[in-house]
Amino acid sequence: MIILVINCGSSSIKYQVLDMRTDDDYDLIAKGIVERIGLGNSAVQYAPKGGEKRSKETPIPDHKAGMEWVLKALTNPKDGVLKSLDEIAAVGHRIVHGGEYFSESALVNDDVLEKIELCCDFAPLHNPAHLLGIRAVSAALPKVPQVVTFDTAYHQTMPKYAYMYALPYEYYTKYRVRRYGAHGTSHQFVAAKGAKLCGVDLDHSRIITCHIGNGSSVTAIENGKVVDTSMGFTPLEGMIMGSRCGNIDANIVPYIMKKEGLTPDQMTDIMNKKSGFLGLSGKTSDTRDVKSMADAGDPLCQLVIQKLLYDTVKNIGMFAAVMNGVDLIVITGGVGENNAWYRYGVCKHLDYLGLRFDCEANEKAHGDAVISRPDSPVKAASITTDEELVIARDTMHIVKNLA
Amino acid sequence: MIILVINCGSSSIKYQVLDMRTDDDYDLIAKGIVERIGLGNSAVQYAPKGGEKRSKETPIPDHKAGMEWVLKALTNPKDGVLKSLDEIAAVGHRIVHGGEYFSESALVNDDVLEKIELCCDFAPLHNPAHLLGIRAVSAALPKVPQVVTFDTAYHQTMPKYAYMYALPYEYYTKYRVRRYGAHGTSHQFVAAKGAKLCGVDLDHSRIITCHIGNGSSVTAIENGKVVDTSMGFTPLEGMIMGSRCGNIDANIVPYIMKKEGLTPDQMTDIMNKKSGFLGLSGKTSDTRDVKSMADAGDPLCQLVIQKLLYDTVKNIGMFAAVMNGVDLIVITGGVGENNAWYRYGVCKHLDYLGLRFDCEANEKAHGDAVISRPDSPVKAASITTDEELVIARDTMHIVKNLA
Repeated sequence: MIILVINCGSSSIKYQVLDMRTDDDYDLIAKGIVERIGLGNSAVQYAPKGGEKRSKETPIPDHKAGMEWVLKALTNPKDGVLKSLDEIAAVGHRIVHGGEYFSESALVNDDVLEKIELCCDFAPLHNPAHLLGIRAVSAALPKVPQVVTFDTAYHQTMPKYAYMYALPYEYYTKYRVRRYGAHGTSHQFVAAKGAKLCGVDLDHSRIITCHIGNGSSVTAIENGKVVDTSMGFTPLEGMIMGSRCGNIDANIVPYIMKKEGLTPDQMTDIMNKKSGFLGLSGKTSDTRDVKSMADAGDPLCQLVIQKLLYDTVKNIGMFAAVMNGVDLIVITGGVGENNAWYRYGVCKHLDYLGLRFDCEANEKAHGDAVISRPDSPVKAASITTDEELVIARDTMHIVKNLA
Repeated sequence: MIILVINCGSSSIKYQVLDMRTDDDYDLIAKGIVERIGLGNSAVQYAPKGGEKRSKETPIPDHKAGMEWVLKALTNPKDGVLKSLDEIAAVGHRIVHGGEYFSESALVNDDVLEKIELCCDFAPLHNPAHLLGIRAVSAALPKVPQVVTFDTAYHQTMPKYAYMYALPYEYYTKYRVRRYGAHGTSHQFVAAKGAKLCGVDLDHSRIITCHIGNGSSVTAIENGKVVDTSMGFTPLEGMIMGSRCGNIDANIVPYIMKKEGLTPDQMTDIMNKKSGFLGLSGKTSDTRDVKSMADAGDPLCQLVIQKLLYDTVKNIGMFAAVMNGVDLIVITGGVGENNAWYRYGVCKHLDYLGLRFDCEANEKAHGDAVISRPDSPVKAASITTDEELVIARDTMHIVKNLA
């Protein structure tokens, strides 16, 4: 079953085409991106499996035009991976925010679209773009079923005492202010993959997953269900991130607004785009650059690296307590998957949990790897995440059930 | 050595008179409070040791008049505990915020006063009142040495990665925005007392102290020094409290300000005075009342109690990770000291740390008590805090060194 997976941002369309036979038997047959939609200098990229990656600048005025370009690239006679658009059995979309409406992926219909629309307020940059993407697909492929997969859905099993803030209760009833979490698709994927790799029974275990990238979140999963997660009402809460501040004393927000004469929107912008690695180091939001400069002796970059490790350790500790222990710790995301120093820096603080860390395995880890010693009561793994595969799987299952 | 301990609020003076022989050999010979200073319906209270507690309404226009009333009560011929004011060897003051200036108690001089003044911005309700108190004592007892003890001082040993927020670095250099913590005097006192009671060596151990009252904070103490604490730039951060929200997603602050059309000061007021138990339950900030209503079946009060326990467990877990384990958990504060259900609700989640909880000892605990089983690798204790005693001790030591 050929499935097109779409991830629309406000000015971009990331896409992958997967040929799904079963959950674990599939081929990624093409992928690419359309960037800077509507910004004059738009660019497109197409990479067929086994073929050459092509990219060029070309005018893409809107998401509809972007989607048309993607479909043309996929079916072009020279290096297209599809003979005809009829081969596309379904389209799966990544949706950042599903609020309290969605605890699993859903087939797109009017009701679903309306609910995604209602969640725009929680993800004002993302959800409107996702709706543009769905409508562009509807226009180009009117008969193809579409499925939506939510970053928030996996976290909907949290108990109320974990997702409620101690704010006036009316902020929840009026504005639905609560913890939603994010990266749910990734946490779900790596928990299952890590459990399998380490011989842990997902449905009878306590797992902590750390998705550490430009955005970072840590999740507590008990018997296969999320019981808590570090991101909150928005993806700002929790750990230090590339440009996000993570946890701060809430009194700081009005304090700085008054000191600096900032509006609420300006303050939001600073906390989300000018803080984190970038704000603290004063240099960059990129982990690789921060790490190089830290190694070269820059004290603020060293502080950023220390805080990144420290915040991860605090979150793992917090969630181990929530579940009264942990059986498996999974590390993923761009930073987590690719950096032995990061995994070592975190895991060396976790002896007390019963983790016997395998330094050698960690140094050699590439792709999916167990990084705890064989005799370790608590297991640890470095796992490569694949959010698009989760979307393709969910899309396949939902579409198969239609038949 | 007779020491007068003063805790000035914006419209109150709490006082105790202690006769200190050594750190542990002392008598509390009188105590009381002057309330609603300058508010028309001022009231005064005086309770001599072994005598009758007296209270009445009487006009107290300012802190100077309040202090004069206290000194008159202490020396009155009928039930005064002092023959003459000359018996007072020193006065110790509680100061809420010492910023980065003070890591221990200090003898009052012009330089010290100036630094307390500089910290008024961090504690705008408290530090100015403390200064009024010091000046009122200077006026009434010009020759008596005064000592100041800071709620923040004990926390000054935190490493930079624990006290820095991931905000633009200039907020630290310009406004000294960082984690300071609070309740330091209490954490210091109960850590030492708990360690002694449980046979743990304070200077070679990992201790987590939970001060749970109307305000609540949890502190990680490694080898006798604070390495992290849950309260932050202000006493708002960390756990749910009587009327304070504790940790929230920082994006919620500007979000709610816009939705509700609030100024920064109004938002600060809501987060500090209308949130926590009060905001979430919609009923009361008092733990006893919340617990009664929860037991009677009120779902929001049940949520508050669950969240109180949950937040404590999360903080203990976080700090256990920071220290790679824990040797002793100490619970104190009005809620912590007096409620077996609270201590049980927290400790039952901590088997994984090696805590073998003693339910029977916990139920019977009154005053200081070990609540872990004798064979428990990790110890736990319920300890009665006494911040005034710490102030009296520090004052005694500093004044003795003057001689």
